[in-house]
Amino acid sequence: MKEFFQVLDIDTVLAFKTRFPKVESEVVQLDQALGRVLADNIVAGGDIPGFNRATMDGFAVQAASTFGASEQNPAYLTIAGSVNMGQAPGFSIGPGQAARIATGGMLPPGADCVVMVEHTDTIDDSTVEIHRSQAPGQNMVAGNEDVSKGQRVLAKGRRLRPQEIGILAACGYGELMVYRRPRVGIISTGDEVVPIDTVPEPGRIRDINSHALAALLRDNGAEPVFYGIVGDSYRDLFAHCRKALVESDMVLISGGSSVGMRDLTLDALQALEQSRILVHGISIRPGKPTILAQCGSKAFWGLPGHVASAMVVFMVVVRPFLEHLCGQTAIPPLRVSARLTRNLVSVQGRVGFVRVRLVHQDGEYWAEPILGQSGLIHTMVEADGLVAIDMNCEGLEKGELVEVRLI
Amino acid sequence: MKEFFQVLDIDTVLAFKTRFPKVESEVVQLDQALGRVLADNIVAGGDIPGFNRATMDGFAVQAASTFGASEQNPAYLTIAGSVNMGQAPGFSIGPGQAARIATGGMLPPGADCVVMVEHTDTIDDSTVEIHRSQAPGQNMVAGNEDVSKGQRVLAKGRRLRPQEIGILAACGYGELMVYRRPRVGIISTGDEVVPIDTVPEPGRIRDINSHALAALLRDNGAEPVFYGIVGDSYRDLFAHCRKALVESDMVLISGGSSVGMRDLTLDALQALEQSRILVHGISIRPGKPTILAQCGSKAFWGLPGHVASAMVVFMVVVRPFLEHLCGQTAIPPLRVSARLTRNLVSVQGRVGFVRVRLVHQDGEYWAEPILGQSGLIHTMVEADGLVAIDMNCEGLEKGELVEVRLI
Repeated sequence: MKEFFQVLDIDTVLAFKTRFPKVESEVVQLDQALGRVLADNIVAGGDIPGFNRATMDGFAVQAASTFGASEQNPAYLTIAGSVNMGQAPGFSIGPGQAARIATGGMLPPGADCVVMVEHTDTIDDSTVEIHRSQAPGQNMVAGNEDVSKGQRVLAKGRRLRPQEIGILAACGYGELMVYRRPRVGIISTGDEVVPIDTVPEPGRIRDINSHALAALLRDNGAEPVFYGIVGDSYRDLFAHCRKALVESDMVLISGGSSVGMRDLTLDALQALEQSRILVHGISIRPGKPTILAQCGSKAFWGLPGHVASAMVVFMVVVRPFLEHLCGQTAIPPLRVSARLTRNLVSVQGRVGFVRVRLVHQDGEYWAEPILGQSGLIHTMVEADGLVAIDMNCEGLEKGELVEVRLI
Repeated sequence: MKEFFQVLDIDTVLAFKTRFPKVESEVVQLDQALGRVLADNIVAGGDIPGFNRATMDGFAVQAASTFGASEQNPAYLTIAGSVNMGQAPGFSIGPGQAARIATGGMLPPGADCVVMVEHTDTIDDSTVEIHRSQAPGQNMVAGNEDVSKGQRVLAKGRRLRPQEIGILAACGYGELMVYRRPRVGIISTGDEVVPIDTVPEPGRIRDINSHALAALLRDNGAEPVFYGIVGDSYRDLFAHCRKALVESDMVLISGGSSVGMRDLTLDALQALEQSRILVHGISIRPGKPTILAQCGSKAFWGLPGHVASAMVVFMVVVRPFLEHLCGQTAIPPLRVSARLTRNLVSVQGRVGFVRVRLVHQDGEYWAEPILGQSGLIHTMVEADGLVAIDMNCEGLEKGELVEVRLI
């Protein structure tokens, strides 16, 4: 068995991500942009809404014309006209004047607030009674209140949610520059692994890892490319690795949980052009036997064979690299507070990641650790998140408040 | 102005969802199934892994052969053979015997545990020294430990995450039945609304709502279909509503924030075939002027015109209907605990939904309310979640622990 070079801690491993360049950008239509990452800053070409806009149905007036008005002592204003929706009014409002306006309408020049229709009484075609004293700015938004011309509305690196799509629509971006989806090659290894459409003979299992990793990649904005299953043959393994490396932005090889297969994988990665092994062992559990090679400008990962280990390493270690490749501004994963339903022991010299189920009870979440080895996919299916146990902590106690990283 | 029929509370509105049928199911390939909803229960056709499997490199033995063994007093076992990866071993293990085995290998009949190679010393080709006493089941998984034949692995209605894709691969599901994506029609209304590729003249604004709602629909597994912008014309509005209704599983109409446009929308919805207004006003803020019509077997929503109102109503009210349509088992939205950075007042007679930004500081989240009216899209862009203020509560205080619903 080859020795681990030197087991590295997570932060050291994550710091390697800056060695790898971002993917290029491409143009997409706004309606294809959800979940993509902005490759440019978005600057507003104009004010939004672009005009003083009523947010209530009523009368546009000068606030000063209403000062002191009340039910008992109304102000009487002259109706100067009506604002047509979607049109600039062809008149202005002076002291003592009012204009009929509907929600969304443009305030005439001179008007600085809207009196809600509920606080008015229309006496006749030319006179309205105002029952409330208004402050300037009431029941309207100013022309640049949503967005100001020249303002940086969204920063490069932002992943687009529905609300970002909304503000891009507001700014007139029918198409925009986003980072291309990274292509990530997937190779499974092991003489015991068979394609999922095969009924495995005794001693064999279906290729779970390729499909679980492909789904994780898709979930994180990348495009998986399958390079199949490779058995215990150096020649085959090297050929597959080389092809995947040429055609992809990053490669994940998994399986080969036996020492022999792991050694073969390490040999193949070392033999690739311009290859340098950056990581051979991470102080986490599960996931210690993880390899990261830098092959030219590309990251080549050797993930553990046990499916839950491979998935945890992906979530905790590979994902930040992928975000970096995608140009995404790093965002710390969301954490939910929960109380542990049982004691958890720490792992000597490693950060432990424990799969937990979240149960909401009496107004708070409880995190219930899921028992079972990391080779069992059902332990991931039952899990809602991961709880990290620091290597320097003594362990965590039942009832203790912990942070759950959602998966 | 037409009266609201009767403002209903959220729970009453949500209970209407069972009036609408689920969409049909369709077959998808496993690698297209991420995020889709299972239309069938998934039952395992066989045990997984299907054989007793080593989880460490070492020797497969009968635990009883090692009882009492230690460094000082090792047990000496006879090496009966080696297990080839991916093959059923052609021999069995009796008392006093051992078989070389690698991680992932199949234990020979008779063996009931694996001794890690680190706890052994191979004396010669036929003898191995065992330095530890082993319990049955150590360093292996049993043949049905991950999944048992006939077990219901995943239930109908489950939305598929990467780990569910993994277990489906393990069970050999190269394709599966999922619910079809609901088609949801989107109509924007208002004389002031222009397409996003237009530079709006004074008094006009771009159609933010259609694009923000389309993104929300995509984010929730539906397929949006745009039916354009309709101005203040009953005839046009009715024609658009009718077309959208025929071609879609559900329709969202938004905009028309003025009373006139709202009345027109209500008239159009009432005039549709087999139409019945179920909801005309919900006791929430923002979002009170929401309409829900049942048109035959389809839900037709009249959403508020202000974009933040429309989005909040979508998230809080429409989404559960969509989940129901998609066949998804209802899952309560995830809530993150956070402390308020300022006091919030409650709204008389309505549940308030306040947009908040989440800030992680000193090990806990703070929820910072975002100021600004519901017509402003930037208030949604700055928000990470919503805090609900119950109508019966006096208000929430600065520093109080609240639950944030992520958006």
